[in-house]
Amino acid sequence: MTHHIKSAQTIENIYDSADLITQEVLKRYEGTPDPRLRELMLSLIKHLHGFARDVKLTGNEWTFLMGFLEETGKWCFPGRNEFVIFSDALGLSMLTVTQDYKRPLHATEPTLVGPFLLEEAPRFEMGSDISGGAAGSPMYARGRILDTEGKPVARALIDVWHSDERGLYDVQEDLQKTGPWARALLTTGADGGYAFWSVLPVDYPIPQDGTAIRMMRATTGRTWRPAHLHFRIRAEGFLTLITHIFDRSSGNLDGDAVFGVRPSLIADFIPQSLGKAPDGKVMDRDFYTLDYDFVMVRG
Amino acid sequence: MTHHIKSAQTIENIYDSADLITQEVLKRYEGTPDPRLRELMLSLIKHLHGFARDVKLTGNEWTFLMGFLEETGKWCFPGRNEFVIFSDALGLSMLTVTQDYKRPLHATEPTLVGPFLLEEAPRFEMGSDISGGAAGSPMYARGRILDTEGKPVARALIDVWHSDERGLYDVQEDLQKTGPWARALLTTGADGGYAFWSVLPVDYPIPQDGTAIRMMRATTGRTWRPAHLHFRIRAEGFLTLITHIFDRSSGNLDGDAVFGVRPSLIADFIPQSLGKAPDGKVMDRDFYTLDYDFVMVRG
Repeated sequence: MTHHIKSAQTIENIYDSADLITQEVLKRYEGTPDPRLRELMLSLIKHLHGFARDVKLTGNEWTFLMGFLEETGKWCFPGRNEFVIFSDALGLSMLTVTQDYKRPLHATEPTLVGPFLLEEAPRFEMGSDISGGAAGSPMYARGRILDTEGKPVARALIDVWHSDERGLYDVQEDLQKTGPWARALLTTGADGGYAFWSVLPVDYPIPQDGTAIRMMRATTGRTWRPAHLHFRIRAEGFLTLITHIFDRSSGNLDGDAVFGVRPSLIADFIPQSLGKAPDGKVMDRDFYTLDYDFVMVRG
Repeated sequence: MTHHIKSAQTIENIYDSADLITQEVLKRYEGTPDPRLRELMLSLIKHLHGFARDVKLTGNEWTFLMGFLEETGKWCFPGRNEFVIFSDALGLSMLTVTQDYKRPLHATEPTLVGPFLLEEAPRFEMGSDISGGAAGSPMYARGRILDTEGKPVARALIDVWHSDERGLYDVQEDLQKTGPWARALLTTGADGGYAFWSVLPVDYPIPQDGTAIRMMRATTGRTWRPAHLHFRIRAEGFLTLITHIFDRSSGNLDGDAVFGVRPSLIADFIPQSLGKAPDGKVMDRDFYTLDYDFVMVRG
């Protein structure tokens, strides 16, 4: 049980040993049966190890990262995925959207889905008020869902969701108590048209109570999103289009916290005086209108 | 509101646009005030985007990944961090340990901490039975904590934790009900010696109920760990040593699911016939002994 000192020699290049670990791990994952999963895993390991080696990640930093990921998990609940906020804030979401969605130049640009999509949204008749009692200035949005040849897309399913005038989404409150608001599923008719009333979305900061905001404050300092409506449009025979329409009057178009703005997605939310709205409704207060057509890609 | 078709031209090289996104993101994070955090973030973004671009990550794969991370968060609780199991299974933990812990060649090799460390372990007198009623063959472990010149390290705090004969850790059961078992905090005296009774650890598969096991089954197919004791040894003026002692008789030394085995950490758990144990205790059943000295690095 005595321990003899062999030498005072230190490992001069400790990273040789770290290289061996990477090789050992890659060799093991080369046995992954599914070819696509193998490709994903080998690249993930190369980049993950590349990151750790390039920055000479320390044990304390690793420990912090593990605790941070665990805490991030605790900020997830139905309607909010904190990992999505990280992906958005690190530009991974926009990169994926951009490289994955092949389109002709005149088709609508996609952007990120964000953390607040609910798969089950309340259905409304076209032209309805979908605000569900959300606070804000009335807004009337309308337009058409078209294919790349300008023909209407019938039976398109349009998910729309957005913030109220406080900059909050329904899922950031107690959904069980309030039910969904400013969130709808609409279906187009033969003319491909869509229309709904809701409230004007506003600029808002990303959620203040999670882990992502802590990273953003410590890094870019940009935590605001320009006012926008979210859309997901699905139709038989077309690529699903997930995008936003941004308000041109926003002061945050140049600094979106999650890199989602594309110039082609900026539109005018036009202030209108009280009186007759485009759908014939008589408004007793001022309101806004938005006209925007979406062009979907077959695939 | 009519939409005019501008051209049927498609974006031939969609990745040009993805490149612009990476540049935009990097530029934003270059403003990170803390230099080390800036270095970490820029490298993380380069590698994260590099991964997504190299594999041409699809929207569906991104969606799967986001859901998988969210679910991983739900498998975390005190004493189990599922993200650590991923880090271990992807070799990130061993890479970090290896490159971070500079040591003379004759100092004890570190290995990964694993997901089951508890910061608050029950204190025991040196030589105690720490099994806490865990099922298994009796085992007596002893040795010394030495510095690199072979001198004893007094007042070293030794955390030890390990599996029972079912291959389970206390934290995998209801800790509130059973309390900790096969887990202890010991303090060395002037001679730097340590000794404790517990039960023999066995080979075990990583937790069967989380997300990490699903990845491992779909990739390497290696889900077992060779039998081992975990140690964390802390002492004033020394680098904290986190390591394992592996059982040479294990059939899984070549295929540890988490790449933790180092030849210098393999030792003999020697079967002994009933009768007098090294500490004078008279055993009425067969038992095992382990002798292992740890060499700590000043720092």
